[in-house]
Amino acid sequence: MSRFTYQCALRWSDMDAYGHVNNARFLTLYEEARVAMMFDGARDAGITSLEEGVVIARHEIDYLRPVDYGHPVRIDMWLEEIRPSRFVVGYELFDDGVVASRARSVCVPFDLAAGRPRRLTDAEREFLTPWLESTS
Amino acid sequence: MSRFTYQCALRWSDMDAYGHVNNARFLTLYEEARVAMMFDGARDAGITSLEEGVVIARHEIDYLRPVDYGHPVRIDMWLEEIRPSRFVVGYELFDDGVVASRARSVCVPFDLAAGRPRRLTDAEREFLTPWLESTS
Amino acid sequence: MSRFTYQCALRWSDMDAYGHVNNARFLTLYEEARVAMMFDGARDAGITSLEEGVVIARHEIDYLRPVDYGHPVRIDMWLEEIRPSRFVVGYELFDDGVVASRARSVCVPFDLAAGRPRRLTDAEREFLTPWLESTS
Amino acid sequence: MSRFTYQCALRWSDMDAYGHVNNARFLTLYEEARVAMMFDGARDAGITSLEEGVVIARHEIDYLRPVDYGHPVRIDMWLEEIRPSRFVVGYELFDDGVVASRARSVCVPFDLAAGRPRRLTDAEREFLTPWLESTS
Repeated sequence: MSRFTYQCALRWSDMDAYGHVNNARFLTLYEEARVAMMFDGARDAGITSLEEGVVIARHEIDYLRPVDYGHPVRIDMWLEEIRPSRFVVGYELFDDGVVASRARSVCVPFDLAAGRPRRLTDAEREFLTPWLESTS
Repeated sequence: MSRFTYQCALRWSDMDAYGHVNNARFLTLYEEARVAMMFDGARDAGITSLEEGVVIARHEIDYLRPVDYGHPVRIDMWLEEIRPSRFVVGYELFDDGVVASRARSVCVPFDLAAGRPRRLTDAEREFLTPWLESTS
Repeated sequence: MSRFTYQCALRWSDMDAYGHVNNARFLTLYEEARVAMMFDGARDAGITSLEEGVVIARHEIDYLRPVDYGHPVRIDMWLEEIRPSRFVVGYELFDDGVVASRARSVCVPFDLAAGRPRRLTDAEREFLTPWLESTS
Repeated sequence: MSRFTYQCALRWSDMDAYGHVNNARFLTLYEEARVAMMFDGARDAGITSLEEGVVIARHEIDYLRPVDYGHPVRIDMWLEEIRPSRFVVGYELFDDGVVASRARSVCVPFDLAAGRPRRLTDAEREFLTPWLESTS
């Protein structure tokens, strides 16, 4: 039940004309957390196949409260599900310690050379498994 | 069963390092279609309350195939559900005539002055109803 | 004295928290015009080397008046200078027929394989020359 | 001769299709440094008029080397010139300790209510003056 935690600095330009962080931009913030874990974290573990060999099949995002420009937000991230040919990432975004958004991404391992979905390798599964959390 | 149709020009900068339109950017393209209908279209019908008085509560996006920079994409948009205190927008994004993504946005009428959700006005409901479509 | 003219649709998300098109975003709009000429236009003329083989060495942008979200802006573009190892693009951005910004980009032909600047090819020079305009 | 120094985290989405930080995005990174000084720093000094009462009249940016996604970049910032009705900000952007870009922004104090340029207040001038540096 451990979670990957990422501090994400906001930018003034994340705000839209309403003066809050734009709802589309949340996906970019979640992307930063995912990149930190799947690219940088996995590379440290000797795995580079999650970086280039995974495509996004689906995102779901719930917006609970507006986020204003200011201090960095904290993104907690974990794995909701790991299957042979897909895995599901869960996230929560905290602003000033309060959850402001939740999201879920369905990720599909992909063989870029062959141009089709592939199965997770054993090494990938081993890297992801410690972050698996039974969903509430 | 009529749909609102919007031609959305892509930008070179919509591409990410993989050379395809970035998955987070799709929300911006869908936003453009929503703005065209809810802001400009509604304003033509004398309704300005959808422009400033609606917040996004949830997005769901499915990615069916990568979209490359080039010709404008076409976004079809309709209403999936209209309830007293929320409505659900459905979208399909077509690239070269083939559906590349589907999405759904849960929208909540909001009283900005009072800082809390409100009910749809009769005028808003009248404006939205012709786009209502029974979901497949 | 002919100019390349490009209609560029604005997006709602081009606005920043001040409610105007963000000043940094102007470079993206100018980029769209440059891509239309240097990539698409050149490709039609059988030249693909301007697309991948040119880097930006410098931008200058003057902001004359704020641009609001709404109708597409028009960007006029021309060549201010063509030298063996660099060329300078000039632009004017018109909002509702009034010039709102001017810019200039210094572009350097680049040999990506060798990792160093190169000279313009004859074909590139021929493609660019008709847009050359003596600067005011 | 003191400089304002700002560490700016890069985002994966700052890269364009060439795999480097996009040239237009540099203005957003410089904007972050300016906001940190003119908004947050000035607010700490009791000055809020630089935050909403300044418009950008001109940017100049030189690109010396490509910046890749990875560690935060460092932006050094100072004042090149302070005049009654405008001031000029200078910047250098360092990637891995090496200068990768230089820029300059001409900023104009603006009376938003009256809709026209105004003079710097004494408090603003006092806030800015310690960062003034004789240009090389």
